[in-house]
Amino acid sequence: MKKLKFLFGSHCHQPVGNFDFVFKDALEGAYEPFFRLLDEFPGIRMSAHFSGSLIEWIEQHKPEFLDLVGALSGRGQLELLGSGFFEPVLAAIPDRDRLGQLEMMNYYLLDRFGIRPQGAWMTERVWEPQVVDSLVSAGLRYVVLDDFHFKCASITEDEIDGYYVTENDGLPLAIFPISEALRFSIPFQPPEKTIEYLRRAYEGGKSVVVMMDDGEKFGVWPGTRDLSYKDGWLRRFFASLEENSDWLETATPTDILAEMPPRGIIYLPTASYFSMSEWTLPAEKAEEFASIVHQLRDSEQLERYRPFLRGGIWRNFLSKYPESNNMHKRMLALSARVERLWTEHDAEGDEEAEAHLESATMDLYRAQCNCAYWHGIFGGLYLPHLRHAVYVHLIRTEKAADEAEFTDGLLPAVAEADINMDGGKELILRSQELTALVAPLYGGALYELDYRPLDFNLLDTLASRREGYHSAFDAPITAQVEESDTPSIHDIARDANKELKAALRYDWHNRYSLLDHCLPVGTTLEQMMDRTFRELGDFINQPYESKVIVGTAVLKREGALYSEEGINPLTIEKTVSLSGSELTIAYRLGCHGSGGIDFLFAPEFNFSMLSGGDEKISYFASDKEIPDCRLDDSGTAEGCMDFGILDLRKGMKLSLQLDSPANVWYFPSNTISQSETGFELNYQSSVILPHWRLTLDPGAVREIKIVFSAEKPDSGSYLD
Amino acid sequence: MKKLKFLFGSHCHQPVGNFDFVFKDALEGAYEPFFRLLDEFPGIRMSAHFSGSLIEWIEQHKPEFLDLVGALSGRGQLELLGSGFFEPVLAAIPDRDRLGQLEMMNYYLLDRFGIRPQGAWMTERVWEPQVVDSLVSAGLRYVVLDDFHFKCASITEDEIDGYYVTENDGLPLAIFPISEALRFSIPFQPPEKTIEYLRRAYEGGKSVVVMMDDGEKFGVWPGTRDLSYKDGWLRRFFASLEENSDWLETATPTDILAEMPPRGIIYLPTASYFSMSEWTLPAEKAEEFASIVHQLRDSEQLERYRPFLRGGIWRNFLSKYPESNNMHKRMLALSARVERLWTEHDAEGDEEAEAHLESATMDLYRAQCNCAYWHGIFGGLYLPHLRHAVYVHLIRTEKAADEAEFTDGLLPAVAEADINMDGGKELILRSQELTALVAPLYGGALYELDYRPLDFNLLDTLASRREGYHSAFDAPITAQVEESDTPSIHDIARDANKELKAALRYDWHNRYSLLDHCLPVGTTLEQMMDRTFRELGDFINQPYESKVIVGTAVLKREGALYSEEGINPLTIEKTVSLSGSELTIAYRLGCHGSGGIDFLFAPEFNFSMLSGGDEKISYFASDKEIPDCRLDDSGTAEGCMDFGILDLRKGMKLSLQLDSPANVWYFPSNTISQSETGFELNYQSSVILPHWRLTLDPGAVREIKIVFSAEKPDSGSYLD
Repeated sequence: MKKLKFLFGSHCHQPVGNFDFVFKDALEGAYEPFFRLLDEFPGIRMSAHFSGSLIEWIEQHKPEFLDLVGALSGRGQLELLGSGFFEPVLAAIPDRDRLGQLEMMNYYLLDRFGIRPQGAWMTERVWEPQVVDSLVSAGLRYVVLDDFHFKCASITEDEIDGYYVTENDGLPLAIFPISEALRFSIPFQPPEKTIEYLRRAYEGGKSVVVMMDDGEKFGVWPGTRDLSYKDGWLRRFFASLEENSDWLETATPTDILAEMPPRGIIYLPTASYFSMSEWTLPAEKAEEFASIVHQLRDSEQLERYRPFLRGGIWRNFLSKYPESNNMHKRMLALSARVERLWTEHDAEGDEEAEAHLESATMDLYRAQCNCAYWHGIFGGLYLPHLRHAVYVHLIRTEKAADEAEFTDGLLPAVAEADINMDGGKELILRSQELTALVAPLYGGALYELDYRPLDFNLLDTLASRREGYHSAFDAPITAQVEESDTPSIHDIARDANKELKAALRYDWHNRYSLLDHCLPVGTTLEQMMDRTFRELGDFINQPYESKVIVGTAVLKREGALYSEEGINPLTIEKTVSLSGSELTIAYRLGCHGSGGIDFLFAPEFNFSMLSGGDEKISYFASDKEIPDCRLDDSGTAEGCMDFGILDLRKGMKLSLQLDSPANVWYFPSNTISQSETGFELNYQSSVILPHWRLTLDPGAVREIKIVFSAEKPDSGSYLD
Repeated sequence: MKKLKFLFGSHCHQPVGNFDFVFKDALEGAYEPFFRLLDEFPGIRMSAHFSGSLIEWIEQHKPEFLDLVGALSGRGQLELLGSGFFEPVLAAIPDRDRLGQLEMMNYYLLDRFGIRPQGAWMTERVWEPQVVDSLVSAGLRYVVLDDFHFKCASITEDEIDGYYVTENDGLPLAIFPISEALRFSIPFQPPEKTIEYLRRAYEGGKSVVVMMDDGEKFGVWPGTRDLSYKDGWLRRFFASLEENSDWLETATPTDILAEMPPRGIIYLPTASYFSMSEWTLPAEKAEEFASIVHQLRDSEQLERYRPFLRGGIWRNFLSKYPESNNMHKRMLALSARVERLWTEHDAEGDEEAEAHLESATMDLYRAQCNCAYWHGIFGGLYLPHLRHAVYVHLIRTEKAADEAEFTDGLLPAVAEADINMDGGKELILRSQELTALVAPLYGGALYELDYRPLDFNLLDTLASRREGYHSAFDAPITAQVEESDTPSIHDIARDANKELKAALRYDWHNRYSLLDHCLPVGTTLEQMMDRTFRELGDFINQPYESKVIVGTAVLKREGALYSEEGINPLTIEKTVSLSGSELTIAYRLGCHGSGGIDFLFAPEFNFSMLSGGDEKISYFASDKEIPDCRLDDSGTAEGCMDFGILDLRKGMKLSLQLDSPANVWYFPSNTISQSETGFELNYQSSVILPHWRLTLDPGAVREIKIVFSAEKPDSGSYLD
């Protein structure tokens, strides 16, 4: 009987924009010790994948680690996999970028290690049939996915072996199935459990077993550093593999391709691993799904149902989170623009333009890094610094494209295009300092405001929404420990503590800016913070008509105020114009009913300052600066003529100038999300609500002007 | 309150290769009366789609029907939808053909009716995200899918309204959801039920309800002709729509696109309607799935589970049925070849070659018609005439490509390529008369043999396999009537009668040719027919080594015979060569063990004569013709030197000449499949098994030669 081939692999990745200390810790606490140990076992062959964002950091900070990788690869011990360079979800980026990112990684691997990768790591194992085309075009012959994908295609546990071949557009690609059982047990169960599992597979007549998973399982995930190295899990694991070499052999996918034909032709649905299919569901559905899974597990029916049971697909995150969709669609629009410019300038052979487009393309690829676009067991989309990094690179893409397209530096002041694909055209206002995106269909809101000198989208705020796992807060506060045969990161007990529960609030609207609240007189700061305020108007998330008049965006909604006394027509018109680093918003509110109205008009702003509780961030109001007003503080500034935020770290001052005195509510908006270590509270934005009491007789009109400005002072005056 | 918009639509299709009388009956009994009646109700606006294969037939036989369609379209009453011209499953054909077929339909609609379609009918509503690209490139703005697709993307029943927008590669496409409830109730429930349903939707605040389904529901499906017209269902339905015009309005998708923005961004998984997801499953899984659905329905949990419950995707049919995969992969290879030739000849501007390629492309598109590639409630893949039509057009594609490529008429005699994507290279032998495809990995079998003068794949045989619905035969023979609230075609009672049950046999191997059976001496015709024979060898579906030597395919397997006495090594070598209309197979069987062997060697041939029980088909043996040997007969012809089949309809004679006398078993191979009217038995092939008793001493070698030839006699001698 032939030996069982065990394909072991490690996928190492840190997202674009992650903190330096995280990169360093992961390298020194996980990747380095892992591959050093592998170096001690030259008989163990395995596969590895390093994402481009991780590679860039290591090349810059500790290139000798990559020399070790090169040595392992050079002596045939380690097979290196390709991928989209900056770890994009291939299915979620345009076909041209897919190919570009794959070829970029191919080029790097050839240049650095002298190898041509034969297969690719699939980011988050997100499969859509169309990705075959670019993978094959990039010369890649295989990918590695989960056995769950195979079960979704009616492959039984017995038939999971070797590899299968799929095709798209007639292009063939081999697919290897990763064992979920091993993924859950390594390194959480003793090494002997894996050997037992492999032995059973061998005795059951299998020829190949595959286990490839995150490299962070060996030293980054909670508890795994001591386990893997100090307690010697990994050494014992490698040693047991060698001890069983009479029936067991480590190998790489390319070995198997050379050795045996595929088990058959296969067509996989749009899918990822099972848990991902739950995470992509909106809260209510996620809870329903979790409850069904629970119920089936309890009645021992889960394995029978599993091949037919699934939640959503990865791209459903874009529907679940408008903020993710906004980033994604902005990325798509920039990708199309860069592509158009390439085509135009290719023809012209304009070298300077091409240099800008090279740079635009690199930033575009960085902005496609998957982590900030979704949320599962890790923070992901909930982490402001990861979203910020996406915007940094999107803005840089745009600036480089501008350099290539508008060589005189004159940008078009206003444009209309459906950037976010909501079916209506957004208004795009631009200067060298600011880019403003206004969505008429959603309350005529300002939903992106880029301060270009700092590559900073000032409005990048995630609203607080219910998540399926928030159900932990519904139950009495006790430790929530799930029983399971294979305790893993998915089962880490989460203690929904009292403070977090008290902080949990849900927004009923996206946290955009220029959201036109109409509130009852007497509304308080606390009501705004608690989301218990009563909205009288129908303006927040309802469509505004829009047009462009002489470089100015004009938005108008004929809405109404709704109260016990009846419905009072109210028209809100806002014109938004941009000049340099100033954005001017001129409101015109008209009472058009037969009765008068009396309400608080409170246009909402959300500035995302990246971190809460930071000494370097301070508010100021009017000409009276309020020092050390910490972000987790909140308050009401009375009688303001201007209100602003000073960010000493970025060296940036934002301010709102008001043409008539207003009281201003300000407070942080937070979210509560799950992470690998439990629940965490994340600062999302500083909410600023200037508000005016408006008492309007029938036919009366009130005008209000707000001037937003951003500054990055050349002098140190603000930075002392 | 705005009126409810009702989008009613009809999709009319008959497959490429369907019988003339079926086209005629469908036109006269369904499409004509339907649209004549619509003509009487000018206030009813609706949508319609006609497939290209249907259009071609009508243009040829009754073009005045299309004038009526044109008149309805011209006065704005009927919105015509585009599609892939010959009704391909868009996801299953190469991207270039997708676009080509969509543009072909666009061109026809513009040329015939002067309209540019705004949306497309999705064949069998098979969705894969990648189809967006070609749809949008062809100028199409929307498609219509099932509400099931939407539920798979977590859209709740309440949120199913209007339309959503999706994108791929940044290209936006609107998607409308078809109501499954209405699809099941129209026309099986009284018209009032639909009005009630629409009324509830209206009162529940919905703005749009969509019902588009097969036009054959009104006059082709069992029982629907009398129901729709004689009993007046359709007239009453149109009349009730008009009677309720105070709150209800018929409309088309394009109206809605102009009137309202999308409800949101949506990403649908690879899916079709719910039943399709069951049909694509292999039998065992299909039974499991059906039992789960049944169980959930009984416990009233089905609707809770449904958004998370699904079987397979359409392309899984290609894994379920190797015969479908063979057609599909042959189609893909020809598509790639035609594309390559287009590129080469485009550059050259060779008009004659381009004319051949035009013709090749049209036949390729015809061969992509979906019906013969799958099987659900209709016969589809089980119907030999539909598969035959696919091969007719594939062979014509190949011949036209040959004309373009090999202008001297000299075809390459042998080539190697992995046509069927089994991971090994097939051997392709060619002459102007024959094309032979041999699969080394599957028993060195001949799996396609095209007789080019008649565009006829002589081997096109579907093996008999268990289907999920065969479980009806397991139960005691009684009428199997399912209870359901909405009896529809899906619930037609099937009486698994005794004759069919007795005829049910399953093959354990594909019904290819040159399958090298090694049988115990004494094996009978009845055992072969009953599939109760015992296979001693390991040759049937096991790999052969292959090479090409001077224009000849050489196949060899060092296998063995397995019996109680032990394992006896046996080597089978077969060389296959082709000259004109003759295919010569030279066997060499070598006994390599220490003991002698004694067995029947019976290479299997399956010729697909398209129909069983036909007077025009007769067998003959040796030089003694056996007249009127009907296909549903079977027998043993003893001491044959040649054995053949005369097909008087096609004017074709097939014969096997044997170099030493053999007994020949011959019998039909049948399948039992479901159709819209119940179970049916389908002739698939005439199995021919010449067999020799071989008694070989250790070291002995036996040679056997078989010469296959096909003739289409110019003289009438065979056709008298």
